[in-house]
Amino acid sequence: MKKYVFGADLGGTTVKLGFFTTEGKLLNNWEIPTDKSDGGSHIIADIAASIDGFLFGSGIPKDEVEGIGLDVPGAVSKDGLVLTGVNIGWEGTKDAAGELSALTGLAVACANDANAAALGEQWMGSGKDTDSLLMVTLGTGVGAGVIIGGRIVAGAHGSAGEVGHTALFPELTEKCGCGNSGCFEQVCSASGMVKKAEAYQKDGCFAGIPMEEVTPLAIYKAMERKLPEAEAVWASYTEDLGRGLAVFASVLDPDIIIIGGGISHAGEALLSPVRESYRKHVFYPAKDTPIVPAMLGNNAGIYGSARMVLNR
Amino acid sequence: MKKYVFGADLGGTTVKLGFFTTEGKLLNNWEIPTDKSDGGSHIIADIAASIDGFLFGSGIPKDEVEGIGLDVPGAVSKDGLVLTGVNIGWEGTKDAAGELSALTGLAVACANDANAAALGEQWMGSGKDTDSLLMVTLGTGVGAGVIIGGRIVAGAHGSAGEVGHTALFPELTEKCGCGNSGCFEQVCSASGMVKKAEAYQKDGCFAGIPMEEVTPLAIYKAMERKLPEAEAVWASYTEDLGRGLAVFASVLDPDIIIIGGGISHAGEALLSPVRESYRKHVFYPAKDTPIVPAMLGNNAGIYGSARMVLNR
Repeated sequence: MKKYVFGADLGGTTVKLGFFTTEGKLLNNWEIPTDKSDGGSHIIADIAASIDGFLFGSGIPKDEVEGIGLDVPGAVSKDGLVLTGVNIGWEGTKDAAGELSALTGLAVACANDANAAALGEQWMGSGKDTDSLLMVTLGTGVGAGVIIGGRIVAGAHGSAGEVGHTALFPELTEKCGCGNSGCFEQVCSASGMVKKAEAYQKDGCFAGIPMEEVTPLAIYKAMERKLPEAEAVWASYTEDLGRGLAVFASVLDPDIIIIGGGISHAGEALLSPVRESYRKHVFYPAKDTPIVPAMLGNNAGIYGSARMVLNR
Repeated sequence: MKKYVFGADLGGTTVKLGFFTTEGKLLNNWEIPTDKSDGGSHIIADIAASIDGFLFGSGIPKDEVEGIGLDVPGAVSKDGLVLTGVNIGWEGTKDAAGELSALTGLAVACANDANAAALGEQWMGSGKDTDSLLMVTLGTGVGAGVIIGGRIVAGAHGSAGEVGHTALFPELTEKCGCGNSGCFEQVCSASGMVKKAEAYQKDGCFAGIPMEEVTPLAIYKAMERKLPEAEAVWASYTEDLGRGLAVFASVLDPDIIIIGGGISHAGEALLSPVRESYRKHVFYPAKDTPIVPAMLGNNAGIYGSARMVLNR
């Protein structure tokens, strides 16, 4: 095992870069813009240039570096091929790892960003010392990653862990972004919570808040002020989220379930009713599976990407 | 790798035993009764005696045998400890593998029976040459096993793959055997199909069949005769089953989904509408995942058990 490893978290706006010891200590981190022009064809070269520049500037020889982990916002096969990277302009199957390796002369591993975040939490976050976990990130959408035996489960088509698109609400007729309807994400994302509030709309307002200002944070604050509509939305949301986690845990039975994303900042106000709903719906051997908040925040991706290289 | 391996499939009535080459050819198979007296305390010794007797009788030396795989009707930890074996009288945690190994002098691996069946299908059945699969068995209950990377996923509490107890039908209020309500098994087991027929009951009959004679087979036959109530039950059942498989595949993204158990004998009459429902509900990268019937029938357990030993 060499001394150092890089993690690169490729997002739609920036690429986050992290320089770690192979024991998992983050020594430096920085960002570069994601250049989506020309079908995203400059992105890999930009990452290579930034890493090469960092190594040159710091005087660290490449033979002390184990490699680079790269996560991307798209489906990645279990062999590390990017199958879809629509948000960053890539089309068709792309060997991003091979390209980055050719440019830098370093070993490169590649995975989906939600899967990398889950691996990061398992390496140095809330899932430290566990063998398996499910991490669910509640944001504009619902992302998730599955770790079993300390490794990412990518799936046959790179879509393992896509719990956001499980058809848990067949009674819904509205279309999801994925083209189906009734997806978990339609109900348990930030916009899903806002949609629940819309049902309580009165004179263009929800709990006294103009509809265009209704966000999960506004609903949370109104719930804390014990406004009944907000309490009802919060109860319905946490019930649905807990049931979803119970379904996933009855399939996977992970050591731990980690919740990340903006909504998770509500802390125990979220997790406590979610655990109650989870216990009600999950198969009994898994009733006490811990449901905990994520620890690494926006750095989970660089941690997990770095870890991927060590997992090769 | 030695020449031979045993698989033992421990059921509530009999123990099925199989003697295989380590390449997966079944050379002999037989059954012994499951002696549930005295809290099931004689079962392991009976298996040991039967295997020792077989080897003595056939003149095969023990050093040509790789070991014994044992599957049991209960939860088994990833380390092979039996956590619950209620149907066979066992109470508390039991090191069945250790006991059988001590008695026979052979290496022993242990897993849950549904998981072993899934591994058997992956070794020598419908999942041959795949890396990952979900096998769902539609019987009195709904059993399932998950294989990833050619290995059983046992889960943190031995309950991975318990898709029968996913809360996919929260609108149901009747209790499931597990104590929850709204479980997949309540709807997609054989009794779940019969329950659907009860809703169409008229004068104590369903499609002209007295209610006490309504079985999945009777419903299937009535559906083939195009009786509208039976067609409606069949359509509803296959829709629900397809949605369930879609949910599980959006979490696991396996290479293949295998359907076993009595209801699977309906063949394409079952699988064709199930695939249609599956495609409607699954996340798009997994739309073309094959859904196929199991091949090994009641022998899946002995195959998978034998394979476990080789997977150590």
